[in-house]
Amino acid sequence: MAFKHSFQVRWVDTDGAGVVHFSNYLRYFEVCEEEFYRSLNLDFKTIRARYLVALPRIEAYCNYKASCRFGDEIEVSLSVREIADKTVTYDFQVFLKADNKLAAEGYLKCIAVNEKWRAIPLPSELAKVIRQSSV
Amino acid sequence: MAFKHSFQVRWVDTDGAGVVHFSNYLRYFEVCEEEFYRSLNLDFKTIRARYLVALPRIEAYCNYKASCRFGDEIEVSLSVREIADKTVTYDFQVFLKADNKLAAEGYLKCIAVNEKWRAIPLPSELAKVIRQSSV
Amino acid sequence: MAFKHSFQVRWVDTDGAGVVHFSNYLRYFEVCEEEFYRSLNLDFKTIRARYLVALPRIEAYCNYKASCRFGDEIEVSLSVREIADKTVTYDFQVFLKADNKLAAEGYLKCIAVNEKWRAIPLPSELAKVIRQSSV
Amino acid sequence: MAFKHSFQVRWVDTDGAGVVHFSNYLRYFEVCEEEFYRSLNLDFKTIRARYLVALPRIEAYCNYKASCRFGDEIEVSLSVREIADKTVTYDFQVFLKADNKLAAEGYLKCIAVNEKWRAIPLPSELAKVIRQSSV
Repeated sequence: MAFKHSFQVRWVDTDGAGVVHFSNYLRYFEVCEEEFYRSLNLDFKTIRARYLVALPRIEAYCNYKASCRFGDEIEVSLSVREIADKTVTYDFQVFLKADNKLAAEGYLKCIAVNEKWRAIPLPSELAKVIRQSSV
Repeated sequence: MAFKHSFQVRWVDTDGAGVVHFSNYLRYFEVCEEEFYRSLNLDFKTIRARYLVALPRIEAYCNYKASCRFGDEIEVSLSVREIADKTVTYDFQVFLKADNKLAAEGYLKCIAVNEKWRAIPLPSELAKVIRQSSV
Repeated sequence: MAFKHSFQVRWVDTDGAGVVHFSNYLRYFEVCEEEFYRSLNLDFKTIRARYLVALPRIEAYCNYKASCRFGDEIEVSLSVREIADKTVTYDFQVFLKADNKLAAEGYLKCIAVNEKWRAIPLPSELAKVIRQSSV
Repeated sequence: MAFKHSFQVRWVDTDGAGVVHFSNYLRYFEVCEEEFYRSLNLDFKTIRARYLVALPRIEAYCNYKASCRFGDEIEVSLSVREIADKTVTYDFQVFLKADNKLAAEGYLKCIAVNEKWRAIPLPSELAKVIRQSSV
């Protein structure tokens, strides 16, 4: 099951072409990821405090299908693609809600690091919580 | 004497009206402030390390006169308006270089704080360096 | 009566000091303004289409009181300060919801312009809608 | 030959982890692309006016290797990977200049569209200018 989060395109997200700047889709992915963690009673700070781990991105990808414009209602969906030893990869899709059109899709690959930003195994408790969310 | 720093308007700075988003002028002020400190062989990190002080803003103001657009060459000037016991206030002007037109002007008022973000007197050495720059 | 809109501080809004970058408070003001117009069944595009007018800012001001951090729930309130011949000024306050602490306050002064960005009188219908909202 | 453009990491580019927010690397790619076009006496506006074409992105990818921090001098390099019938793909690398360390690499794939945002063949004159730049 994908996790879903909806919000509106803000004026500041648009560029001189009248559409959302391409870099902002990665920010939309991240907003959805934040809400996903919140739905698990987690957030970046809690993850860091409880599991002594941070999850910076090592890869980001986006494929652009259709433009989003100011005021558009969009729905971002997140699904867990893969949980590996030290990484977790989330797939994202951005839909224009007015016509349920796919605007963009991509992924973020995150790596578990300790406070010195050295890669470490994903804490098993955290992996379990993430895995269960996606059933 | 005002300190001056020139750069180009980037595409990502524009919004759907084809002009620089109004919030970005505060970022232009800050870029000029960063270059000003660099011209004094200072930067936020050095200031923090050497003087045990940070200088967060307590006030920001901007008056918009003319639009800046993608590709415009702009010059931002900084002048020290006032150095008080705990604060320093910088005035800024943004010029469109093509016709030397004033696009925006405003100020940032910064307060000296210690590592607990409590207001403290501006270190006299730092105040001196800033004051001398503006002669 | 003030119009109120609540949302969460996003990770991307923070800077290296771990707090919301000062320029983003102007963006928070604008998000609240967008929601205010939406509550009147208006938005920037509708205002432009219906009243042949845009409302770019000619002044922005913010006074910073307390830091907002990642994950903080904030409430932004908008109240109409003044409707003049060609301008409308909105006052904003940003509250940290956890302890109802004022984090920032300021204003945006907007001017009515036609499609050539010449100042024009605020359309009386639009002025009326805005005025009634604030009773 | 790769095109190169150097600049400094700005404070506003950093996030609460004290490093450049991952979305900003796409913006760094774009800044380098803007300077690349400028080096060819082109820019987005000129391209649109002269060749009746815009070049929105259809894909963006970034692989993160090392963190960039406030004040770091970085060099972004662009090389033309592929010019196809309707698309052009640019490869990017972001280097930390202090130790010539690779911080990030990725690509942007752009598609030629007409004013109705329909895909069209890349104008041969434009393709030629881009191709020659990379010899």
